[in-house]
Amino acid sequence: MPTNKQIHLASRPEGEAQAGNFRLVTAETPPLADGQVLVRHHYLSLDPYMRGRMNESKSYAQPQPVGQVFQGGTVGEVVESRNPKYAVGDKVVGFGGWQEYSVVDGNQPGMLRKVDTAHVPLSHYLGAVGMPGVTAWYGLVKIIAPKAGETLVVSAASGAVGSAFGALAKARGCRVVGIAGGPDKCKYVTDELGFDACIDYRQHPDAKSMSAALKEACPQGIDGYFENVGGYILDAVLSRLNAFARIALCGMIAGYDGQPLPLANPALLLINRVKLEGFIVSEHMEVWPEALKELGTLVAAGKLRPRESIAQGIEAAPEAFLGLLKGRNFGKQLVKLI
Amino acid sequence: MPTNKQIHLASRPEGEAQAGNFRLVTAETPPLADGQVLVRHHYLSLDPYMRGRMNESKSYAQPQPVGQVFQGGTVGEVVESRNPKYAVGDKVVGFGGWQEYSVVDGNQPGMLRKVDTAHVPLSHYLGAVGMPGVTAWYGLVKIIAPKAGETLVVSAASGAVGSAFGALAKARGCRVVGIAGGPDKCKYVTDELGFDACIDYRQHPDAKSMSAALKEACPQGIDGYFENVGGYILDAVLSRLNAFARIALCGMIAGYDGQPLPLANPALLLINRVKLEGFIVSEHMEVWPEALKELGTLVAAGKLRPRESIAQGIEAAPEAFLGLLKGRNFGKQLVKLI
Repeated sequence: MPTNKQIHLASRPEGEAQAGNFRLVTAETPPLADGQVLVRHHYLSLDPYMRGRMNESKSYAQPQPVGQVFQGGTVGEVVESRNPKYAVGDKVVGFGGWQEYSVVDGNQPGMLRKVDTAHVPLSHYLGAVGMPGVTAWYGLVKIIAPKAGETLVVSAASGAVGSAFGALAKARGCRVVGIAGGPDKCKYVTDELGFDACIDYRQHPDAKSMSAALKEACPQGIDGYFENVGGYILDAVLSRLNAFARIALCGMIAGYDGQPLPLANPALLLINRVKLEGFIVSEHMEVWPEALKELGTLVAAGKLRPRESIAQGIEAAPEAFLGLLKGRNFGKQLVKLI
Repeated sequence: MPTNKQIHLASRPEGEAQAGNFRLVTAETPPLADGQVLVRHHYLSLDPYMRGRMNESKSYAQPQPVGQVFQGGTVGEVVESRNPKYAVGDKVVGFGGWQEYSVVDGNQPGMLRKVDTAHVPLSHYLGAVGMPGVTAWYGLVKIIAPKAGETLVVSAASGAVGSAFGALAKARGCRVVGIAGGPDKCKYVTDELGFDACIDYRQHPDAKSMSAALKEACPQGIDGYFENVGGYILDAVLSRLNAFARIALCGMIAGYDGQPLPLANPALLLINRVKLEGFIVSEHMEVWPEALKELGTLVAAGKLRPRESIAQGIEAAPEAFLGLLKGRNFGKQLVKLI
């Protein structure tokens, strides 16, 4: 039985999340029962939604239990199997949590999925061809439902969701404008991801300045907005919406740590007859096959070139996660365990 | 040619609308051209949306031009006709504005509609069986789309829109909770309109108190909300929404006069995966026939008993309108001209 290093949630944050909220624990992997497989994780996924789950309070996800392995998506390789559907060596995507190994019931639907790594690197199944990619797809296709020629905006544009959103929107003939932090990320968003423009929010630290920047980048106004951030950026976007604009509300990371962030002028939602919808992609499993197929094709064709920030070793997970919450990552944040 | 007393918009309000923003003007009705009819107005409709049109700024309706007849819905009788489709004595609904007579091109589609007054009093075509009723219908049927057994809330419940909303929602097997100002209105909402409960917002003048009152009136939480008001009531409703709740955003009268009213915690829209949609009913003319048919049937069957506040004479229109904005009306506010 291999030794299995794990990260547990040690305590809930008061205000900002801290390294002390996590604890490194060493466990043994238990012997397999019939139907189970042992997966060695190659990569852990770090995602902004996890911050919400650290809080006790009602959130869009169930709270992460204290004193247990921190939950999250993983990709890896089957290293032992007592299930005829999985062979040693199979590459799999699952929800194994922040640990080096997980024991999975291979007969429970949706727990484990075999993936092809011939055309798509394994790690991308945690990003562009995984939950973040499907998140972008759902918000774009099912909520924003754009027509060719419309102008769409996405915040956190260089991240896993934002970069997929850009490629999917360009494939539908839209003008796509990103918002990201710093000149390097903005350059990547336009030069590598193919966005039409990108606004550096550090240069526009309030709603008025951001609104002016959006006016310049979106001369025809904004028809659709994919929200990952909240706060003053949402206020600024609202001031530039066209009539009948659609907003896909996916994340509001700006408010995760403390007091709610108000929306300055909700009457704009009425004035512009806006449709806004909050969603969580795991509640829409029916779209995953269609979305993953399109995303895989875009990656294989080189039309979506997702960038990854990779931390090394399970011990690095908490700091990498805290950095993600502050925007220190550049592209999809992963932890590599092999 | 009869003399035609009119109310014009004299100036745009700065802050609260005032009587001085209106001006009484006496004009002559011009001779009819071919195809035109002369309508003598029996009732003018006063509606909250008109306040938004008094402002210069971008709103959900085009601004009302200064120095012209104040626009609005009217019902009346054809008193002269040079159009074979209309005979003297026909009862008609139109958009004749705040004046005693209007000259209408009877060939232009949508300008004038003949109505049956055998089962529905003429004035109701400006309320329950008119634009306000269709507004309630659209928000309920097309946005909230309730299932039987769900709990729905509507603000301004004793008004023209709110009372129609209640009858339509009860017909669909929902629990309906109103919010209104003062014990008389609340009693009318429950006893005459058949709502399951009504909350007096004067007894609950802040979000915390309103939220507690909503919790009591909506023990199963809120599945749908029809918003006429905005401000702290919307904050309170958001705190009681169920997952996958729907909000029809029809009016935010609380913010018409001045500074935008912020929304305290927009993250609740994400946490509860809410669908919110702003709308203006005149952009959905395709639903009017179906909606008017249901509303007319409810009124004829005595299942929707709309109440009216009636001011007498064109000169009374500005004060009655200002009273409406302060909630001084009780039910649909009209001005009677005959």
